[in-house]
Amino acid sequence: MNQNLMDFGIGEEKLREECGVFGIYDFEGNDVASTIYYGLFALQHRGQESCGIAVSDTDGPKGKVSVHKGMGLCNEVFTPEVLEQLHGNIGVGHVRYSTAGSSTRENAQPLVLNYVKGTLGLAHNGNLVNAPKLRHELEYTGAIFQTTIDSEVIAYHIARARVQVPTVEEAVAAAMKKLEGAYSLVIMSPRKLIGARDPFGFKPLCIGKRDKAYILASETCALETIGAEFVRDVEPGEIVTITKDGIASNREMCLKDPLKEARCIFEYIYFARPDSVFDGVSVYHARIQAGRFLAMDSPVEADLVVGVPESGNAAALGYAMESGISYGTAFVKNSYVGRTFIKPKQSSRESAVRIKLNVLKEAVDGKRVIMIDDSIVRGTTSALIVGMLRDAGAREVHVRISAPPFLHPCYFGTDIPTEDQLIAHGRTVEEIRQIIGADSLSFLGQDRLAAMAGGRPICAACFDGKYPIEPPSEDIRGAYEK
Amino acid sequence: MNQNLMDFGIGEEKLREECGVFGIYDFEGNDVASTIYYGLFALQHRGQESCGIAVSDTDGPKGKVSVHKGMGLCNEVFTPEVLEQLHGNIGVGHVRYSTAGSSTRENAQPLVLNYVKGTLGLAHNGNLVNAPKLRHELEYTGAIFQTTIDSEVIAYHIARARVQVPTVEEAVAAAMKKLEGAYSLVIMSPRKLIGARDPFGFKPLCIGKRDKAYILASETCALETIGAEFVRDVEPGEIVTITKDGIASNREMCLKDPLKEARCIFEYIYFARPDSVFDGVSVYHARIQAGRFLAMDSPVEADLVVGVPESGNAAALGYAMESGISYGTAFVKNSYVGRTFIKPKQSSRESAVRIKLNVLKEAVDGKRVIMIDDSIVRGTTSALIVGMLRDAGAREVHVRISAPPFLHPCYFGTDIPTEDQLIAHGRTVEEIRQIIGADSLSFLGQDRLAAMAGGRPICAACFDGKYPIEPPSEDIRGAYEK
Amino acid sequence: MNQNLMDFGIGEEKLREECGVFGIYDFEGNDVASTIYYGLFALQHRGQESCGIAVSDTDGPKGKVSVHKGMGLCNEVFTPEVLEQLHGNIGVGHVRYSTAGSSTRENAQPLVLNYVKGTLGLAHNGNLVNAPKLRHELEYTGAIFQTTIDSEVIAYHIARARVQVPTVEEAVAAAMKKLEGAYSLVIMSPRKLIGARDPFGFKPLCIGKRDKAYILASETCALETIGAEFVRDVEPGEIVTITKDGIASNREMCLKDPLKEARCIFEYIYFARPDSVFDGVSVYHARIQAGRFLAMDSPVEADLVVGVPESGNAAALGYAMESGISYGTAFVKNSYVGRTFIKPKQSSRESAVRIKLNVLKEAVDGKRVIMIDDSIVRGTTSALIVGMLRDAGAREVHVRISAPPFLHPCYFGTDIPTEDQLIAHGRTVEEIRQIIGADSLSFLGQDRLAAMAGGRPICAACFDGKYPIEPPSEDIRGAYEK
Amino acid sequence: MNQNLMDFGIGEEKLREECGVFGIYDFEGNDVASTIYYGLFALQHRGQESCGIAVSDTDGPKGKVSVHKGMGLCNEVFTPEVLEQLHGNIGVGHVRYSTAGSSTRENAQPLVLNYVKGTLGLAHNGNLVNAPKLRHELEYTGAIFQTTIDSEVIAYHIARARVQVPTVEEAVAAAMKKLEGAYSLVIMSPRKLIGARDPFGFKPLCIGKRDKAYILASETCALETIGAEFVRDVEPGEIVTITKDGIASNREMCLKDPLKEARCIFEYIYFARPDSVFDGVSVYHARIQAGRFLAMDSPVEADLVVGVPESGNAAALGYAMESGISYGTAFVKNSYVGRTFIKPKQSSRESAVRIKLNVLKEAVDGKRVIMIDDSIVRGTTSALIVGMLRDAGAREVHVRISAPPFLHPCYFGTDIPTEDQLIAHGRTVEEIRQIIGADSLSFLGQDRLAAMAGGRPICAACFDGKYPIEPPSEDIRGAYEK
Repeated sequence: MNQNLMDFGIGEEKLREECGVFGIYDFEGNDVASTIYYGLFALQHRGQESCGIAVSDTDGPKGKVSVHKGMGLCNEVFTPEVLEQLHGNIGVGHVRYSTAGSSTRENAQPLVLNYVKGTLGLAHNGNLVNAPKLRHELEYTGAIFQTTIDSEVIAYHIARARVQVPTVEEAVAAAMKKLEGAYSLVIMSPRKLIGARDPFGFKPLCIGKRDKAYILASETCALETIGAEFVRDVEPGEIVTITKDGIASNREMCLKDPLKEARCIFEYIYFARPDSVFDGVSVYHARIQAGRFLAMDSPVEADLVVGVPESGNAAALGYAMESGISYGTAFVKNSYVGRTFIKPKQSSRESAVRIKLNVLKEAVDGKRVIMIDDSIVRGTTSALIVGMLRDAGAREVHVRISAPPFLHPCYFGTDIPTEDQLIAHGRTVEEIRQIIGADSLSFLGQDRLAAMAGGRPICAACFDGKYPIEPPSEDIRGAYEK
Repeated sequence: MNQNLMDFGIGEEKLREECGVFGIYDFEGNDVASTIYYGLFALQHRGQESCGIAVSDTDGPKGKVSVHKGMGLCNEVFTPEVLEQLHGNIGVGHVRYSTAGSSTRENAQPLVLNYVKGTLGLAHNGNLVNAPKLRHELEYTGAIFQTTIDSEVIAYHIARARVQVPTVEEAVAAAMKKLEGAYSLVIMSPRKLIGARDPFGFKPLCIGKRDKAYILASETCALETIGAEFVRDVEPGEIVTITKDGIASNREMCLKDPLKEARCIFEYIYFARPDSVFDGVSVYHARIQAGRFLAMDSPVEADLVVGVPESGNAAALGYAMESGISYGTAFVKNSYVGRTFIKPKQSSRESAVRIKLNVLKEAVDGKRVIMIDDSIVRGTTSALIVGMLRDAGAREVHVRISAPPFLHPCYFGTDIPTEDQLIAHGRTVEEIRQIIGADSLSFLGQDRLAAMAGGRPICAACFDGKYPIEPPSEDIRGAYEK
Repeated sequence: MNQNLMDFGIGEEKLREECGVFGIYDFEGNDVASTIYYGLFALQHRGQESCGIAVSDTDGPKGKVSVHKGMGLCNEVFTPEVLEQLHGNIGVGHVRYSTAGSSTRENAQPLVLNYVKGTLGLAHNGNLVNAPKLRHELEYTGAIFQTTIDSEVIAYHIARARVQVPTVEEAVAAAMKKLEGAYSLVIMSPRKLIGARDPFGFKPLCIGKRDKAYILASETCALETIGAEFVRDVEPGEIVTITKDGIASNREMCLKDPLKEARCIFEYIYFARPDSVFDGVSVYHARIQAGRFLAMDSPVEADLVVGVPESGNAAALGYAMESGISYGTAFVKNSYVGRTFIKPKQSSRESAVRIKLNVLKEAVDGKRVIMIDDSIVRGTTSALIVGMLRDAGAREVHVRISAPPFLHPCYFGTDIPTEDQLIAHGRTVEEIRQIIGADSLSFLGQDRLAAMAGGRPICAACFDGKYPIEPPSEDIRGAYEK
Repeated sequence: MNQNLMDFGIGEEKLREECGVFGIYDFEGNDVASTIYYGLFALQHRGQESCGIAVSDTDGPKGKVSVHKGMGLCNEVFTPEVLEQLHGNIGVGHVRYSTAGSSTRENAQPLVLNYVKGTLGLAHNGNLVNAPKLRHELEYTGAIFQTTIDSEVIAYHIARARVQVPTVEEAVAAAMKKLEGAYSLVIMSPRKLIGARDPFGFKPLCIGKRDKAYILASETCALETIGAEFVRDVEPGEIVTITKDGIASNREMCLKDPLKEARCIFEYIYFARPDSVFDGVSVYHARIQAGRFLAMDSPVEADLVVGVPESGNAAALGYAMESGISYGTAFVKNSYVGRTFIKPKQSSRESAVRIKLNVLKEAVDGKRVIMIDDSIVRGTTSALIVGMLRDAGAREVHVRISAPPFLHPCYFGTDIPTEDQLIAHGRTVEEIRQIIGADSLSFLGQDRLAAMAGGRPICAACFDGKYPIEPPSEDIRGAYEK
C-alpha cells in the first residue's frame, strides 16, 4: 500500500542488488514486450520486489521509449492491457530483489533516461564497491541523483563518456574503466542492444537466439522459457553489441583478464535456478555434486535422505546417489505462502514455519533421517525443522549443509545478514549442532567449492574472506545500511 | 476486477463444489479468527476462488456474527486489519474451488443467516444430487434464493426443521434425511459448533483439539498447521456437537450405514494434501502405494523415474522404491506462475507449459525415463511434457499414470471435464500413447484403487461408472453447466 | 478497504434507507445497463454508499439475470468493462445512502432472487415500520435472512403470495397489504417491470418514456438526464405494470386512499435535486418559496443575502427576490472534498469546515449579511460559518433557516440524529441564536410547509411529531441502531 | 490502472504545466505533512493529475527526505497511514494539471534529488520557453534526464551553480539568469525554504504565516484553508529565503524589473479560485468586474441573468448588479461527475453535457435569459447549453462571455487547444453566434482586461498575441506536443 513512500538521503543507498536482467532485439520488427514478460517470469526468483520493462522501436522515431515499472511480481505489475501498449522490437527488462528498507518504486529498473545522444534504457545486476565515491565525484561536477541505485551512477558515466566517443559501446567501455565491483548490464540505445559483464564475472549474463532475435539474460532458464537457443555466455569483462548486422564484440574495448575471474559461488549454491547453466556448468549438477561431496566427506548411517524444499532437494539427491541411502520426501510445502504472507495481529500460537512446512509423518516415523539444506543462516529455522522431524517420529536427525558456514559480509550483491546474526560467527560446528538439536552436523568443505563450479575461478569471500577486490576501507556496508 | 458480476438464473446453478471447511470453538474465550485464517491457509489447495470467515462470541449477545468474505486467496482477502475486527471465540471458515462461469462473491461461503432461532454460520463441502428438486420444493412454499450454492438449500432445511425440534443438531439430522449427495458440513450456532458428514462419507471431515479448543477441518493437515492434535474423523453419517460440555454425538440422530460408505478416491489420488490422513489412511502412503502398484503391474527397463510436479512426485518415489530404478528430478517448476497468470495479448511464441515447467537437461540427457503423472485429462499437456523430455535428450519416455483413465462424470463434487474433452473417452491405451508420443503408457488398474484407500469402501465412479447414489435421470450436469 | 466486513445479527437491522431507485424496460430490445448507469448518476445524491444494477433479457432464457453491485459511487463501482457485460433490455438500479455502522456489500441492492416463479430483481427506497415483526413471522415459518435490509422482507412476502395468485403484480398487491411504512419499489420479473408506492406516498416515484422504452425513477431529474420525457407520477398506493403491451394499473389492486397521503416534506427541503418535480411541485420552486416565506415572516435590514452552498442557495434567492436585498455569493466550496475526505492522524490545526468552505472576504467585508441555510442540526457547523463571516468583516450576520427546527425522530427513512444531538431539542430559538453567535435567527414556520409542497398533504413529523402511521410502541429506532 | 506507463523520448516533452505549489517551514519542529496535505487540497483545482509531498527535518540528519507521490487527487494519493510516515518540519507539496498524453507518475512532483550539497526538494509551476535548448546544453556536458518536466532542467542549473557559489539561494539566482519563461518555485534544502518567481510574474506565489511557521503557496486560498495569515506576495523576479532567522530577500540576487511584469490574465478569468487575492487584486472582484463591464459594453433587455456553473457565476452576478436585471440560477450541476467519469461502451443516447448539467425549467420558462460563461473554446458545449435553455422554455438566450475570444497559443503554461480547434479562429462574432444558436453574443473587450487585474501589467497574449517573451522561433508547441 505504501510502496511509493521513499526515504531519500545521502546516507540511504542500498548497496546490495540481487537482480535479474533481460534484453532482446528482434530484427524482424516484432513487438518484444510479452517475450520480455515471459523472460522476467523465468528470472522472478532473482527479485520479487519490483520489475519493469522498457521497449523502443528501432524503426520508429529515434529515442521514443515506452516504459512500465512497478512494485511487485511480474504478474502483478504487468496486465495484458499494459503489455499491449508497450510497442517496440527492442527492449530491456528487470526484476529486483526484495530487502527491507529503501525498497521504493523510484528505485525500480530499467532506468530510462535522455542524454546527449538520445535515450538509454539500462538494467543492471550487481553492486559497485566504489559507487559512493563515484557519486560524490559526479555531484562535484553538477550531477543530480533521483534514485539510490548504482545504475544511476553507471548511467552518468556512460552519458558523460558519450560526449567524447563516437559510439555507445565505447562510452560503456570508458565507463567500465571507472566502475569497481559486480555488474552485469543490459543497455538499450535507439538502434543497439548492449550487454556487458564486469572483469571478475561475478554475475552471470548469457546470449540467446530465437529466429531473427537476439536475447541477453541473467540465466539460461530464461532462454529455455521463451524457446530460444543458448548461444554463449558474455565473458567476464566483455562488451557485446547487437545490431541489425548481428552480434559484435570488440576485443580492444573489453576488459578481459583471466587472472581476475571470480564467479560468485552463491549463484550455484542458492541463487540461480537449477535448470540454468553458467559458463558451461549446470547449476543442477553443481548441487548434485555438493551432495555427493557431503556424502563422501561426512558419511553417516541412516535410512533416509531428505532435502529441505526447494533448495535442498538436489543436494539430497546427490547425497542419496553417492551414499546409496534411500532418497525420500519428508516435507509438504504450502505453495500459497508467498511473498505476501502477513502475520495476523491477533495473538495466536501458530508459527511461521508450520504455516510453510508440514512433515510427512508416514515418511519419517521410526527412521534415521539425513536432512540436507543449502545453508544455515540464523539457525532458528533449522532448529524448528529438526524438532518437527523428531515430533514426527524420526529416530535420528543428521543435518548436512551443502555449503560452508557463512562468516563474512558480501560487498558484491549477495544479501548476507550482519555477522552478529550469523550462527556460524564465533561458534564451532559442535556448538551449532547443539543449538539446532541435530544428532550430527556437517558443512561442505571450502575446498569443495571450486569443483562445484567446474574448476573455474570463483569468489567465495562470504565463506573464506578472500575478496577479489579490496573491500572498502570504511565499512560502507555498515555505513549505508543503517 | 469483475468479480462481483453474477449471472443468476434458474438454469445457472453450479453443481460441483470442491471446497475446504474449518470450524473452531475455544472454550476459554480466545479470539479464533486468526487460527481459522491459518487453518484455511493449510486448506487453500482445496479452493482458490473465494474464502470467508464468520465468527461469533459464545458469551456475547446471542446471534451477533461478524463475517468477511471475498474473491481470492486467503492472504488476498484477509489483511491483519480485517482479522483484527473479527472478534469471537467460535467460528467457521471456508475456501472455495475456482471454476469458470458463475464464480461470484455472492456464492462465497460461509453462509450467514438469521432464522427463527437466531443466526447460523454454515460452511459446506460437496455436492447434492437432489439440490434442484429440493430448491423447487422450497420455492413452492415461498422460499427465495439469493445464491446458486447448495448450502442455501441445506440452510433452508435446517431452518424449517428447527421450528419443529428443540435443538439445532436435531434440525441438522432432520435436514440430512432429505439431502442426497456429498456433503461435509461445519455449522456454527450461537453456542454450538456442529460437524456433519453424509452417510457415504464422500468428503472428509476430522476433529482436532488444542488446549481448550475443539476444531473441525476437512483435512488433518490443517490440524498440524495450527498445532492441534488429531482426535478422530467425523464418521460417515455422523453429527457431532461441540459445546462447553465437550464433544457429543447422538447415535440416534446419525445416519450411519456401513454398507453405504463410499469415500471419494480422488481425494487420495489428487485432491488432498499428502500430509493428510483420512479415516486412518495416509494420503502420502496411498500415493507411494499407487507408484508401487504401477511398478509391479507395468514394469519397464529404464534409468530414471521422475514425477511431474507436484502431484506425480510421491507415486514416482513409490515406483522407484519398488522397481529399484533411480529416482530423480527432471523438472523445474516456476513457483511464481500461480492462479493469476494471464497470457499477454501480444502474439508470442511462448507456451503456457514452458512458462510453468523447464526440463533439467543435465538430469535426463541420454537416459531412459519413466515419467509418472497422476492423471491424463485432455492429453495436450502430457504430449508437451513428453516432447520436452525428448528435446532434452531423453532416449526413451515411458509414461505411467497413478490412476485409471477418467471415463465418467462426477455428480458429487469433483470437477471432471465433459466426456468429449476426456482423451480416454473412446480411445484405447495404445491410441492415447500415440497421441502423447510416449514409448510406452500404462494406467493404474481399477482393481488397485481399493487397496490405495486401505481397503475401505470407495467411490470410483469417475473411473468405473458405479455410482453409490443413482445419478440424476436427467443429466443435471449438462443441464446446469451450460 | 474493509467494506466487506459485515456485522450480522438479530439486533443489527438498519432501519433508515434513503435511496434512489431506477427501472427501465426497452421494448425494442436494446441493452439498458448504460442508461441505468446514467440514471443512477442523476440519483447519486440520494445514496453514495453502494449501488447496483441488475438486467435481464425479456426475449432471452426466462430467469437469466446479470447483476453487479458494489460499495461506492456509480463511477467507482461501474467500469465500461462491467457495463458491457450486463446485457438485457429490462433492468433495475439502486443507489444507497451512506450511514455509519452496518454498511456492507451484503446490503447493497438491487436484491436478486430465485423464487417459485423464476427470478425477481427488486430495488427499494424507504423504511418499513413493521419490518422486525414481519421478519419474526417469516422466520417462524422457516424463512432465512441473509441481509439486514427491509427489501428482503418485502421479497419474501411477494414470493409467498405468488404461490397463491396468478401474477406478480397481484403478489405485490398482496404483500403491500402487510407492509407498513414508506416504500417506493421497482421490481423486475422476467417479462415485466413493476413500480409501486406506499399509500402515504412518502417517497417519490415517477414514470418516464423514451422512444419505445418506459422508465421508473425516484426523481424526474433522472428522466431529464437520460433524455426521457416525464409521463406522470406513480400515485400513492398505486401499482403500475409495464409490459410489451404498455403501461397498466389495475385500480382494484391498488391501495389508494387520498386521506392517507403524506408526502415527505424533507424531500422538498433537502433531499431531492432542485430540478426534480414531485406530484406537480417543483423542488426548486418549493425552496424559492421557502426563502420568500422567510423574507415575509422574518424580515431584517441588511446589505446582502447569501446561501450556504449548495442547499441554501435557492432559498437565499427567494429571500432576495421577496425582500429586494441583493443576492450574493459569500462562500467558495472546495469541490474536491467529497465522500472520501479522511482527516490525517498527525495533529493539525486545520478544521474540517475550513477545508470545505472559504469565505469571499471581498463579498462580505463591511456588510450586513443574511445567511440562509436549509437546516441546523447540531449547530456546530453553523457557529463556525457565522464566525468565518465575521472574521471576513461582516458587520452583522442574520441567520434564516428554510425549515422548522428538527425535534422528532423519523421512522420512514430520513436519517435524523438522536434527540440529544439536536440543537433544537429543549432550546428556545434565542438560546440557539446565542450558541451559533448570530445577530438574529429565524426558522421557517411549520404552517408554511404545506404551501411549500403546493398544498398537497405532507408528513412533517420530524418537525411537528404528527406521525401518519403509529410509530412503533417500543422505540425500534433506539433498539436497532445501537 | 495504467498510470505508470510512460512515453519517454526526446520529442515528447510536455510544455504546459498548470500546477499548484506549497511550502512550509515550522520553526517549532512540528510535523508539516498534514498541513501540506490541507494546503494541496485548497490548490487541487490547479491540478488533478498527480500530487506529491516531500518533507525533511531541519534538526534531523542533513539531507534525509521522505517523499510520497502518486497519480490522482490528494485524497486518493494520501491516506492517513502515508501522511503519518512523513515526518519533518519543513516540506514542499505539488499538484499537477491533467492533460492527455505524457501524464505519468515519473513526472509527478516535487522532484527530490541528491546533489553536491545534499538534497533538494523542488516544486514548480509554469513553463520554460527555452527548456529544450537548456536540456540540450546540459546533455552536452553529460547530464541525464529521467523525466520530461522542466523542473529537472531547473534542478540541474541550481545543482551546477551550487558548485560555484556559497548558498542555495545564490545558486537559484544564478539559475534564474538562464531560465526563460514562466515559473514560480518552492525549494526545500536541508535548512532553508526558498521561494522564487520569474521576472514577469506570470504565475502567482504568496507568503503566509501561522504561529512560528512560514508558508509559500500558489494562492492565498491555501493560506485561508490552513488558518494562516497572508503576509505578502513574492514579487516578480524575487527570491525569498526562509530560515530559522526569519524571511530574507536579497535585492541584489533578485531579477526585478517593473517594465517586464506581465501577470497571466487567465489566472483571474478562469484558473484561480475566486477567494484568492493576487498582488492585491481579488479574483472574485475581477470576475464581478468582468460581468459589470459586459453589462456596460453589451447591454440587452432581459428578465434573468444566469451563470454557467461554476466559473460563470461571479461574472453573472456582476452583470446583474450593473444591469439591474434579476440574478438567478438556471442550472443544476451533478457534483458526482468528476475527473473520473468514463463513458460506457454500450451505445447509448445520453450526452456528456446532460450528465453534468440539467436546466431548472421552473427558473427559465418563458423568460429572456442572459447566460454568462467565462469562455467559448470549441463552441460545442455552448451550443448544447443554449439548446437546453430553449428546450426549457427560455424565450431568448443572450450569451455574454467574460473574456475575449481565444486566438493565440500560450507558451507559458496555459493549456489552450490548437488554433484549428478554437471556434473564434477565423470567425466573426456573428458567425459564432449562429453556431451556438444564441439570440445575441458578446465577448469582453480586450481593453477591459487590464482593469480586471487592477491596472497591473498583464500578459493577455492568448487574446491579443502580444507575447512578453519572444515565442520560440520554431513552433515548439507543435513540435513537442505531437
